[in-house]
Amino acid sequence: MNNIDNIIKYLKGSNDYIVTSHISPDGDNIGSTLGIYYSLKKLEKNVYYVLDDNPPQNLKFLVKDINILKSSEVNLKDYSIIALDCGDKNRICLSDELIDNAKKIVCIDHHASNDSYGDFNYIDINASSTCELVYNLLVRFNETQNIDLIDEITATALYTGLVTDTGNFAYSSTHASSLEMAKELLLKGAKRDTIIQKVFQSNSYNYYKLLGEALNTLDIVDGKIASIMVTKEMLKRNAISFNDVDGITSYTRDIEGVEVGILLKEKKENEIKVSLRSKNYVDVSIIAQSFNGGGHVRAAGCTIYDSVENAKKQILEAVSKTI
Amino acid sequence: MNNIDNIIKYLKGSNDYIVTSHISPDGDNIGSTLGIYYSLKKLEKNVYYVLDDNPPQNLKFLVKDINILKSSEVNLKDYSIIALDCGDKNRICLSDELIDNAKKIVCIDHHASNDSYGDFNYIDINASSTCELVYNLLVRFNETQNIDLIDEITATALYTGLVTDTGNFAYSSTHASSLEMAKELLLKGAKRDTIIQKVFQSNSYNYYKLLGEALNTLDIVDGKIASIMVTKEMLKRNAISFNDVDGITSYTRDIEGVEVGILLKEKKENEIKVSLRSKNYVDVSIIAQSFNGGGHVRAAGCTIYDSVENAKKQILEAVSKTI
Repeated sequence: MNNIDNIIKYLKGSNDYIVTSHISPDGDNIGSTLGIYYSLKKLEKNVYYVLDDNPPQNLKFLVKDINILKSSEVNLKDYSIIALDCGDKNRICLSDELIDNAKKIVCIDHHASNDSYGDFNYIDINASSTCELVYNLLVRFNETQNIDLIDEITATALYTGLVTDTGNFAYSSTHASSLEMAKELLLKGAKRDTIIQKVFQSNSYNYYKLLGEALNTLDIVDGKIASIMVTKEMLKRNAISFNDVDGITSYTRDIEGVEVGILLKEKKENEIKVSLRSKNYVDVSIIAQSFNGGGHVRAAGCTIYDSVENAKKQILEAVSKTI
Repeated sequence: MNNIDNIIKYLKGSNDYIVTSHISPDGDNIGSTLGIYYSLKKLEKNVYYVLDDNPPQNLKFLVKDINILKSSEVNLKDYSIIALDCGDKNRICLSDELIDNAKKIVCIDHHASNDSYGDFNYIDINASSTCELVYNLLVRFNETQNIDLIDEITATALYTGLVTDTGNFAYSSTHASSLEMAKELLLKGAKRDTIIQKVFQSNSYNYYKLLGEALNTLDIVDGKIASIMVTKEMLKRNAISFNDVDGITSYTRDIEGVEVGILLKEKKENEIKVSLRSKNYVDVSIIAQSFNGGGHVRAAGCTIYDSVENAKKQILEAVSKTI
C-alpha cells in the first residue's frame, strides 16, 4: 500500500486530530492545513486547528471563520497530529508537550530537508507546494472512497497555498500538474480573484513607503548577488509588521543578471532573518543550512545572530563562495 | 462553418501572408504573431513578419532569430494580412498603403472594442489573450488537418503572450481554459523559466531607482483611486525607455481598497500616455474611450495631450465620476 493510501486509511480509522503547520505560517501552511481540516470535518471527525503563531495579515481572510487554538488551550488525550508543510519536527508550531504526547504524527510535506519524522509520511520534494500533495490526497480519497472532499472553500484554501508557494505559478517548481490542479480548483469554485487581491494586491500605502526606503539600500555585488535591508526602525517608522515584508526579496532576485537575491530583515537587535532566492543554478538551501536554516533549492532562509551589517557581510561571503 | 474553420481553410488556400499586430507591441502581440508566423512557415507559405514599431526590450528574446521588416521594406502584390491582437484597424502597425492593398485581412483578437473589421474574424472578448485564440486555432488545425503545429518554439511564444496578458495568471480574465492551455504548452516544451526571467525578472538596477522616484509621486484619492507619475526627466535621469515602465501601473492598483490605478507616463511635452487598471467593478475601457483610447474592462489606456499635472486632473475627474 502506498503512502497516500496508508494515510487515507489512518484518517478514516481514527477520531481525534490536531492539524497544524510550521512556525511563522505562510500561505501553503494555512491552505494545506485547511484542506485537511475541512476534509476531516466532512468525515465527521473531531479536528482542532492548533497553531501557536498568528497567520499573516494578508491570509486572515482564509481563517476568519475558524477557531484557531493555541497549544495551551488544548486538553486532549488520544489524538493524532497532522503536520502540514513542516520540513522539520522542531518547526511544528505546537508545544513540545502536545507533540510528544501525540498517538501518531502524520507528516505531509515537500521540503527537501524533511527526514520523514512522521509515523506516516507523504513527502514529495518535487511538489510545488504541500497544497498540491493535499490535493492529490483528496483526489485519491474521491477515487477510492467515493466521497468528493473538494468543495469551493477547500478549493479556495488549496489554490491559495499553490499560488503563494509558486509566486503565482512563476517558480520553476510549477509543473504541468500544478496547472492542472489550478484548473480543477477553479472549476470547483476556488475564489481566485479574492485570493489574488488579498495575497498580492492588498498592500498598504505605508508598505510602498517602506519599499521606497528599502530600495535605497539595494546593493549589488559582481552583478550576480543583490541584497536589500529592512531594519526594525524602517518597520516601526512605517507601521509595517515584521511578517509582512517577505515579498521585498523579489526586488533583489528580479534584477537582470542576478543569480542570488537576499533580504535581510532585522527582527530585533542582533537577530536578522535572511531570505535567499536564486534563479538558475545556486542551491540556496545549502547556504541556509550552513547557518542552521533550511528550505528549497530556489528559496530558503536562516537567522543570523549579529548586527544587520555583519549579517550582510557573512551571508554575502557565503553566497560568493558558492557562485 | 465556424470562424475558426473558415480561417483554417483560408490559411491553407492562400500563399503570401503578412503577420502583424498593434502599435506599441506587447507580449500578447508578439506571442500570437509568432504563433501564426511559425505555423505558416510549417505549412510552407510565404510569410513576412512586418511591424513598424520595435518590440520592447524584455521581449526581444522571442524574436532574436526573426527578420522583422518595416512596411517600407515590403514589396508584395498579392498578399493577405493576419492582424493579431489589433482591436482597431487604425492600430495595425503597418503603413496605410500595405493595409489598403491587402487582398484580405484576417483578424484574430480579444479586444472588447473590436468592430470585426477583418474579412475573416475570430474575435472572443472573453478570451484571456489573443494567444489563447491562436492556441485554439492551432489545436483545431491539429484536430481537423492532422498536423501538429505546436512545437517547443511556438509553445514558448504562446505561453509568453498568455502570461503577459494575464499578469502571469493573476487577472480575472484567466479562465480554467487558460490554465489548461498553459499546462499543455508546458508539456509541449514551452520555456517557462526563460519567459518568467525575461519578462518579469530582468529589471535593471536603474529601473528600481526609477521605481523609487515614481513611488514618491504615489497619490491616493478617497482611498479608491491611486495614481503614479513617470516624467520624461525621470526616464532620462535613469536611462529607462518609455516603453519599459508599464509594470509600474500595478503599484497603484495593488493597494488595499483601491479600485482604479492610474499610471501617467510623459512621452513628450504635452503628450501623456495613461494606463488604467481596475480591480472589481469599474469598466476602465469606457473611461479610456472617452479620451479616444481603448482596451479591456480591467486594463485600458489612452493619450491626453496636456501637461502631466493637467492630464492627472482630467483623468482623476473622469475616474471619480464612474466610481
